[in-house]
Amino acid sequence: MSKIRVAVLGATGMIGQRFVQMLEDHPYFEIEGLYASERSCGKKLKDVLKVRDHVFKEETLGMGIEATDVKKIAKNSRAAFSGIPSDIAGRTESDLAKNGVAVFTNAGAHRMDRNVAILIPEVNPSHLNSVKDQDTYKNGGYIVTNANCSSTGIAPPLTAIRNAYGLDFVSVSTYQALSGAGYPGVPSLDAVGNVIPFISGEEEKIESELAKMLGTYEKGEFRYAKFVTLANCARVPVIDGHLESLVIRTDKIPSADELAETLRSYRGEPQTLKLPSAPEQPIIVRNEDNRPQPALDAMAGAPGRAKGMSVVVGRIRKSGEYHKLFVLSHNTIRGGAGGAVLNAEFAKAKGML
Amino acid sequence: MSKIRVAVLGATGMIGQRFVQMLEDHPYFEIEGLYASERSCGKKLKDVLKVRDHVFKEETLGMGIEATDVKKIAKNSRAAFSGIPSDIAGRTESDLAKNGVAVFTNAGAHRMDRNVAILIPEVNPSHLNSVKDQDTYKNGGYIVTNANCSSTGIAPPLTAIRNAYGLDFVSVSTYQALSGAGYPGVPSLDAVGNVIPFISGEEEKIESELAKMLGTYEKGEFRYAKFVTLANCARVPVIDGHLESLVIRTDKIPSADELAETLRSYRGEPQTLKLPSAPEQPIIVRNEDNRPQPALDAMAGAPGRAKGMSVVVGRIRKSGEYHKLFVLSHNTIRGGAGGAVLNAEFAKAKGML
Amino acid sequence: MSKIRVAVLGATGMIGQRFVQMLEDHPYFEIEGLYASERSCGKKLKDVLKVRDHVFKEETLGMGIEATDVKKIAKNSRAAFSGIPSDIAGRTESDLAKNGVAVFTNAGAHRMDRNVAILIPEVNPSHLNSVKDQDTYKNGGYIVTNANCSSTGIAPPLTAIRNAYGLDFVSVSTYQALSGAGYPGVPSLDAVGNVIPFISGEEEKIESELAKMLGTYEKGEFRYAKFVTLANCARVPVIDGHLESLVIRTDKIPSADELAETLRSYRGEPQTLKLPSAPEQPIIVRNEDNRPQPALDAMAGAPGRAKGMSVVVGRIRKSGEYHKLFVLSHNTIRGGAGGAVLNAEFAKAKGML
Amino acid sequence: MSKIRVAVLGATGMIGQRFVQMLEDHPYFEIEGLYASERSCGKKLKDVLKVRDHVFKEETLGMGIEATDVKKIAKNSRAAFSGIPSDIAGRTESDLAKNGVAVFTNAGAHRMDRNVAILIPEVNPSHLNSVKDQDTYKNGGYIVTNANCSSTGIAPPLTAIRNAYGLDFVSVSTYQALSGAGYPGVPSLDAVGNVIPFISGEEEKIESELAKMLGTYEKGEFRYAKFVTLANCARVPVIDGHLESLVIRTDKIPSADELAETLRSYRGEPQTLKLPSAPEQPIIVRNEDNRPQPALDAMAGAPGRAKGMSVVVGRIRKSGEYHKLFVLSHNTIRGGAGGAVLNAEFAKAKGML
Repeated sequence: MSKIRVAVLGATGMIGQRFVQMLEDHPYFEIEGLYASERSCGKKLKDVLKVRDHVFKEETLGMGIEATDVKKIAKNSRAAFSGIPSDIAGRTESDLAKNGVAVFTNAGAHRMDRNVAILIPEVNPSHLNSVKDQDTYKNGGYIVTNANCSSTGIAPPLTAIRNAYGLDFVSVSTYQALSGAGYPGVPSLDAVGNVIPFISGEEEKIESELAKMLGTYEKGEFRYAKFVTLANCARVPVIDGHLESLVIRTDKIPSADELAETLRSYRGEPQTLKLPSAPEQPIIVRNEDNRPQPALDAMAGAPGRAKGMSVVVGRIRKSGEYHKLFVLSHNTIRGGAGGAVLNAEFAKAKGML
Repeated sequence: MSKIRVAVLGATGMIGQRFVQMLEDHPYFEIEGLYASERSCGKKLKDVLKVRDHVFKEETLGMGIEATDVKKIAKNSRAAFSGIPSDIAGRTESDLAKNGVAVFTNAGAHRMDRNVAILIPEVNPSHLNSVKDQDTYKNGGYIVTNANCSSTGIAPPLTAIRNAYGLDFVSVSTYQALSGAGYPGVPSLDAVGNVIPFISGEEEKIESELAKMLGTYEKGEFRYAKFVTLANCARVPVIDGHLESLVIRTDKIPSADELAETLRSYRGEPQTLKLPSAPEQPIIVRNEDNRPQPALDAMAGAPGRAKGMSVVVGRIRKSGEYHKLFVLSHNTIRGGAGGAVLNAEFAKAKGML
Repeated sequence: MSKIRVAVLGATGMIGQRFVQMLEDHPYFEIEGLYASERSCGKKLKDVLKVRDHVFKEETLGMGIEATDVKKIAKNSRAAFSGIPSDIAGRTESDLAKNGVAVFTNAGAHRMDRNVAILIPEVNPSHLNSVKDQDTYKNGGYIVTNANCSSTGIAPPLTAIRNAYGLDFVSVSTYQALSGAGYPGVPSLDAVGNVIPFISGEEEKIESELAKMLGTYEKGEFRYAKFVTLANCARVPVIDGHLESLVIRTDKIPSADELAETLRSYRGEPQTLKLPSAPEQPIIVRNEDNRPQPALDAMAGAPGRAKGMSVVVGRIRKSGEYHKLFVLSHNTIRGGAGGAVLNAEFAKAKGML
Repeated sequence: MSKIRVAVLGATGMIGQRFVQMLEDHPYFEIEGLYASERSCGKKLKDVLKVRDHVFKEETLGMGIEATDVKKIAKNSRAAFSGIPSDIAGRTESDLAKNGVAVFTNAGAHRMDRNVAILIPEVNPSHLNSVKDQDTYKNGGYIVTNANCSSTGIAPPLTAIRNAYGLDFVSVSTYQALSGAGYPGVPSLDAVGNVIPFISGEEEKIESELAKMLGTYEKGEFRYAKFVTLANCARVPVIDGHLESLVIRTDKIPSADELAETLRSYRGEPQTLKLPSAPEQPIIVRNEDNRPQPALDAMAGAPGRAKGMSVVVGRIRKSGEYHKLFVLSHNTIRGGAGGAVLNAEFAKAKGML
């Protein structure tokens, strides 16, 4: 079976390069071209390397970067993975969809659009159907977004918990990694030895995206889930891995052990379908009293393709009618490129690619 | 007027050295001696220097360190400032009190004791009376504790808020500095580029200390305040300054601006008494969207003695019936040595020294 | 005596703000205005604050920033302190000199110019005379540059050593702080947990500036000193304070103790003249085996104005005909704004202001 | 062919765990047991995990740790890999050799011993013969040491250069990673935002080990190479990867390009023998102007077993009769466990295992 040809957009950025990493030797997809803005045109991937922890193959490093050209991409690729900055992604992605390209994007531009799913296949697989209601779908073009990097980490455990016990209240504080701001991102003079208690638009995204993802899609409409979400977001001097503290209140109140078991045993469609980038265990629960930690747990997941695709939960404590816990996820893999690649694998499994 | 002679205990540690810093040229107190464990005996302060941001006077740097000797301290000093590690502080502090020494301690050993106040003069000035009920008080010896460093930062704003609007619910997540773990404290391999979501006993301390401090002392008994407190504590790679995110619910629900004004205009007894280490404004409110930051705000307070003694609040946001805000305080000054020095100044103003 | 009115250029940058810090309450100078590029026009200093370790006065924080206007500055100020980025500083500084303004600049634009001294008053005080040969001097306008931040640290010890023993060979490796790159400067993704072994143009500057500063000015010409200088420059994740390792070979070969004593006892004209920003001891020698360290020693110098103005030397070791040592200096104070302020104080003492 | 059974000593430490990483699925060796001090006895590897960038297999994480027992190890294992701290390694390693165990150690205890090679197979393969002169060799027991982590990085390029052009003078300044100090190692309060210009004994080790390794072994005696080595060592806040700046003088003086080519094309016996942990290219030369960097280059080497085993050189500049360059190597892989594993592979290829 020949592989599906795909384009990587925003290939000079952190997320773009994670796409390249996730797509090296992918069983379904092969990279047709790397695209970025005009000014990177002519450079090779190795000239603009930002990913620090993956050893790329020499031939990958030697791939050239081209200026983004919708017609050319549409001609050569069935799908595109977009790591374009959110503020300029909207138009390009729409044009690609109009030209018959399936777009799997990490950008936020279309997340709250009418028939566009914010898809995490372990959380809201049925939302993929919304895509079929997009005007461009009949020509094969459509847009699937993944969630913001800080929403992504907490959505799977909150889904597992909501399914088992009902969910009423969520207070989340984030400890977000620098790679989430892209490159050049946060100046080092602000970052080293410091915490910045502000990430523009982030708290609003967590609150609205969770409600959309944990809601339903019926008769062409998204209906939002109804629980209180309160987010405080901060940037910490960590390279990769968003840590988040949670205080939640459920309808039924399990013991801490029951809650842990609910999370640990949770499985979604990607696990049933054995998708290439799906971790065996979407939510790993650690019992040590000082985990999860970005340095130790960001890369959790089965060795191989699913590295960085598991969410890690720890320090589950019951306090009265509330539970407290910490959640960690890799913000540029599960919460970035890896999330979009998994969405594409899921779309293929559903016959949409 | 001659100054009151004081001893500094635990003088080789981070808190001990902050005591020395706060007591240099103090208008009420003069350091009689620096004390630590046997093995530091004979060293000079400059041999064991840990404070990075204060230029000590040469004569201070040349002060010798002696082995802790209760009898000697009792003979030479009216009061002692204790930066002894909590796990070994209890006995020494009790012995000093029995020997007529007024002990102002940063250690946690006696915080939950029967007639021992956890004192922040802007929060619970009347609790100082509990000290007079200590058995040793009649001989001039007594123990006053300050709060844990992460309780200290949030207690003043929560007091101001409780007084104005009533307080029902507090969810706090901490971003705590490395200096809070003392020295050698956290290994650098764990700290650099990482967050550790666990500080032993810290969450319990926040929950119990807040209830005690915001409660009352009547007829020889502390009665605890009744509101829900839920704490998640984590260590971040910052040298000084504990940042904390708060979600609170009040009985009356003010606008964000009203809440800000309540905090900004809050004053306590130290301000009325114009104590040497009291900042003019105990709670500084910043309007910028990315403050408070440890690197920029830890040293807030009027220039001079009160540097590092103000709590800084920012990002006050109303969300339904909740408010969200960030609080920063200097963990080894206001939340450590400075807090105890202010307690001693307050005790002196009340005629207890 | 009324103070000399001065302008601060590049006031939104790190160096510009260090100028403001050094000029607060200065006995000779008072700030007439803060200038920067058009786009910062209308902002206040507190809106663009970058200095992390100084508590500015409220009135200073409230000073407005104006667009740089040579005519206006020339009308209102006798002198200007320039923290303009080197690549755009040249023209503005020349224009100011033509308009009768004495310019003390941290920018590199004019450093290698014909009659322009790279001045460190402890190193080459006689070079100030070169300034009198500038065409604009007759109208009171002239340019004095300070050395590059990494040249500044090693020039005083090398001068003391050259004077005493002759100097033949210098190999220097730098551990340079992030603030040396200005703001936004180095992206945090490159800086955190990393070292970057390249700073554009830096090695060439060290090699040429040292030769010029340690040379002579005779008959309108600079003659360069003749010794080998080999520089390797790298950026480390430190906020302030350039550390540099040195291997040197002298003509006469002293013991390590003799060399230490030569450095410790070195004094220059600023010390004789008791200039306000001159440290009592321009070179501090530390005997501990693990000093100097940026975190502990960058702020060395007498308390007060000269904080950050001393160079700190440590780990002096003799090895055959070579000596090895480490040198630390504060890159934005002694190696930046403080150096230029000291130059202005020195010019005033010489009757040139 | 059955695998050779080996023991890992010091398995709770950073180096010990790198041994485990390098030995997972090794084609020659299989781990018979993990050993450490009494107090870790009964723990599992996952309880004491320190390696941050490797995903261990579940069965590896579940391996138990036993108290070090020479008799037991001698009974069960043909060889031992020692990550025991240098100050306590000497006796245990001697005892193992006496009991017939081949010891490949990262500890410094025996490095300068009479018939003990400091072996880097790309540098001094013939030194392995010295081992045959050890008294215990006839019983199959012997000790092979690898070089100190900071000597290891520079030895291969200096060997290549010496072979081609002769070598006269080496000045090296190190930027050493925190993992080199083991665990807990450097306190975070000393490390974050700081550089420490001292590592006990390190400069002496570089100077003596280089002379021994680049010398010869003849008639039972090591003869030391004769060139000047001057080392300045410092610790920087980097997790893994020692960067080193070099100034060298050769007898014949090549152009920078010639020197680069000499390094790039260098191959040693491990390459000829295609040993499992030998990188295809022992010295990688990078042409970018800002490489090598610890964050990007520490893991250099062919993907797979040799990850972290290449030395990376960059910024080769000729300056008069000197050359300047930067060298990077992974201090706990090539300069630690990986070096010892390669030594064992080499010994096996030579029929000594």
